[in-house]
Amino acid sequence: MYRTILHNVKQNPSLVHCMTNYVTVNDVANMVLASGASPIMADDKSEVEEITSICTSLVINIGTLNARTIEAMVLAGKRANLLGHPVIFDPVGAGASSLRTETAKRLLDEVKFSVIRGNVSEIKTVYAGSGATMGVDANVADAVTEENIGEMIRMAQDLSVRTGAVIAITGAIDIVTDESRAYIIRNGDPMMARITGTGCMLDGIIAGFVGSNKDHVLEAAAVAVCAMGYCGENAKRKCRGTSSLRMHLIDEMSCLKAEELERGAKVESRI
Amino acid sequence: MYRTILHNVKQNPSLVHCMTNYVTVNDVANMVLASGASPIMADDKSEVEEITSICTSLVINIGTLNARTIEAMVLAGKRANLLGHPVIFDPVGAGASSLRTETAKRLLDEVKFSVIRGNVSEIKTVYAGSGATMGVDANVADAVTEENIGEMIRMAQDLSVRTGAVIAITGAIDIVTDESRAYIIRNGDPMMARITGTGCMLDGIIAGFVGSNKDHVLEAAAVAVCAMGYCGENAKRKCRGTSSLRMHLIDEMSCLKAEELERGAKVESRI
Amino acid sequence: MYRTILHNVKQNPSLVHCMTNYVTVNDVANMVLASGASPIMADDKSEVEEITSICTSLVINIGTLNARTIEAMVLAGKRANLLGHPVIFDPVGAGASSLRTETAKRLLDEVKFSVIRGNVSEIKTVYAGSGATMGVDANVADAVTEENIGEMIRMAQDLSVRTGAVIAITGAIDIVTDESRAYIIRNGDPMMARITGTGCMLDGIIAGFVGSNKDHVLEAAAVAVCAMGYCGENAKRKCRGTSSLRMHLIDEMSCLKAEELERGAKVESRI
Repeated sequence: MYRTILHNVKQNPSLVHCMTNYVTVNDVANMVLASGASPIMADDKSEVEEITSICTSLVINIGTLNARTIEAMVLAGKRANLLGHPVIFDPVGAGASSLRTETAKRLLDEVKFSVIRGNVSEIKTVYAGSGATMGVDANVADAVTEENIGEMIRMAQDLSVRTGAVIAITGAIDIVTDESRAYIIRNGDPMMARITGTGCMLDGIIAGFVGSNKDHVLEAAAVAVCAMGYCGENAKRKCRGTSSLRMHLIDEMSCLKAEELERGAKVESRI
Repeated sequence: MYRTILHNVKQNPSLVHCMTNYVTVNDVANMVLASGASPIMADDKSEVEEITSICTSLVINIGTLNARTIEAMVLAGKRANLLGHPVIFDPVGAGASSLRTETAKRLLDEVKFSVIRGNVSEIKTVYAGSGATMGVDANVADAVTEENIGEMIRMAQDLSVRTGAVIAITGAIDIVTDESRAYIIRNGDPMMARITGTGCMLDGIIAGFVGSNKDHVLEAAAVAVCAMGYCGENAKRKCRGTSSLRMHLIDEMSCLKAEELERGAKVESRI
Repeated sequence: MYRTILHNVKQNPSLVHCMTNYVTVNDVANMVLASGASPIMADDKSEVEEITSICTSLVINIGTLNARTIEAMVLAGKRANLLGHPVIFDPVGAGASSLRTETAKRLLDEVKFSVIRGNVSEIKTVYAGSGATMGVDANVADAVTEENIGEMIRMAQDLSVRTGAVIAITGAIDIVTDESRAYIIRNGDPMMARITGTGCMLDGIIAGFVGSNKDHVLEAAAVAVCAMGYCGENAKRKCRGTSSLRMHLIDEMSCLKAEELERGAKVESRI
């Protein structure tokens, strides 16, 4: 799986239209490049449909949404749907404000997503249609644990049935699932929670991997999540603090080899 | 002082609502995380009141202000005041344009701040209600020196009386003062002036420290300023140029220990 | 040439008003500082004329343009023209959307530029008044090669005649030319294409160098392009991946010495 997915990324590199937030956008662009794709950022409603048309895939991340960009996200999403481009959705902070929760609902109503990625609080909010999150990080109580993992997979699979999207819940333990096949991924390091943007960067990697593997969305998303965690483990060993962790994380992704990832992957498949 | 302030940061970590500029926002988020708090960025007027309600403290930094965000800053500031959350104000570039000077005035009229932090030009502008700064860096002529430090403290204390805020003037020599008690801090390295965002990052650290030490705003702000300078000194010793200085600065903050800071602090108290 | 240009940068440091994109703006600010100038970012139409008035030079980069900022760019550009400040234009993604292509046209109609810098696709679009680019990176077919270099120089010189600007086409081989004198620069490393923002950072360096060398715009732009490539070569030798490449690139610029650049420069002059 790893070799095929990464081989296709290299052979058919994606051009990813990123509609993301201004906090982590630079890391997203550099991570997309590091992972073998190319990014283009554009968020004005008068150009997003045209821009998305020349791309392979689209990321919609509501990390710093506003009235202007929400309209542009809807337009770009619909156009990407028309063109059959995979669209990745990150409902950042859904549950933290009505604007975010309502925008997530609206986007789910108007755009068909290939992958929805968030932490467990955000995915729960999207699932429930409402919720209360603490900031943009998952509530402590809201974590995937060895105890509740079955329940979490069932929630994600229900959401997958309703939306037609692959669902990725990321955190200490990651779940990537479609309606019936789930991958549980245990790569990563707790220190990754101490830098901003790991989720947003992962959105971009997923978009690139899925764009180059359109017939294997689930596997491409799972490999992307696994690759991020694996690079994080290596980065942790090399870093001296949180900022060098971020640097090494992107460095590792830029040097990632399929055979190493295959050896380092901690992925369990459940049907 | 150092141990108590940092202990409280760890025991009761803040969630900091950052309304800051798009130039340094990523460094701010990573520095807030490195210093032990969590950041959330939101600037749309339709959600800022709700977002600030779930937070501990608020940063208002006018580094890249515009008509849309100014209104949101006023709304968030007023809500934070109602809730008793500390609000940190950074009048970036006050004096460099009428928009900035007038916005600073308006914010001071409509919002009660716990801490106002800026370079000496910005604080002078806020004090005088007008001024001429050169860019976002302090005028060379506008520096706190051993000669004028008494005068600078008096200006800051007058401003503290007028606003009720702790005033932090940062530069080669830092002053942190309330109406009567001043700390003079001589940590830091001149090379820190060669990277962007040290002031904005410091806003975020202050917000986190004050949010976890609401009864000791002056001390928390002084420890934050001291910690930034101390980490800068260590980063200077490890770096090869300005970009690695930035990385080491955040790395050092993410590993900071109270006992080391206590030993390294160059803080003089004046009553 | 190198010594004089860099000497003037140090003796008369520029204050660069950067109207750039939110993707790479932090790198631009840090690179401007590393190269010896100071940056100020401001994009609201109610302040850009005032801000540009206190600056030495202006960068207009349409990387993430929108209706609000386009108007501000026109206003700032006209004011900089009135004041005789050099204005650097980067038509990012011209050809990728009508908005970008039309905005580039409008800016060229309303503002007089000192330097226009882009990749070959963007410059071709500006030259032709239309075009089709792939993302923000040059089309593979659209590269300056040893074979087409003469043709590329002629195109750039035609554009220089029409606009009065120095034209910089950057990529594996760089061309910097006015109406008649061309520099061909072969510094740099292919790995630089794997990080975002090298072009945007270069805009800022050019603005600083030209602002301190107003009577030698062509030479200042050529030295800036050469310095960027030279620092990239050194950074490549020190890095472990793409993110550390970015860090070392800025580090190298912050330590650059004229005599070393002179030795390392791979610059050919053609009249």
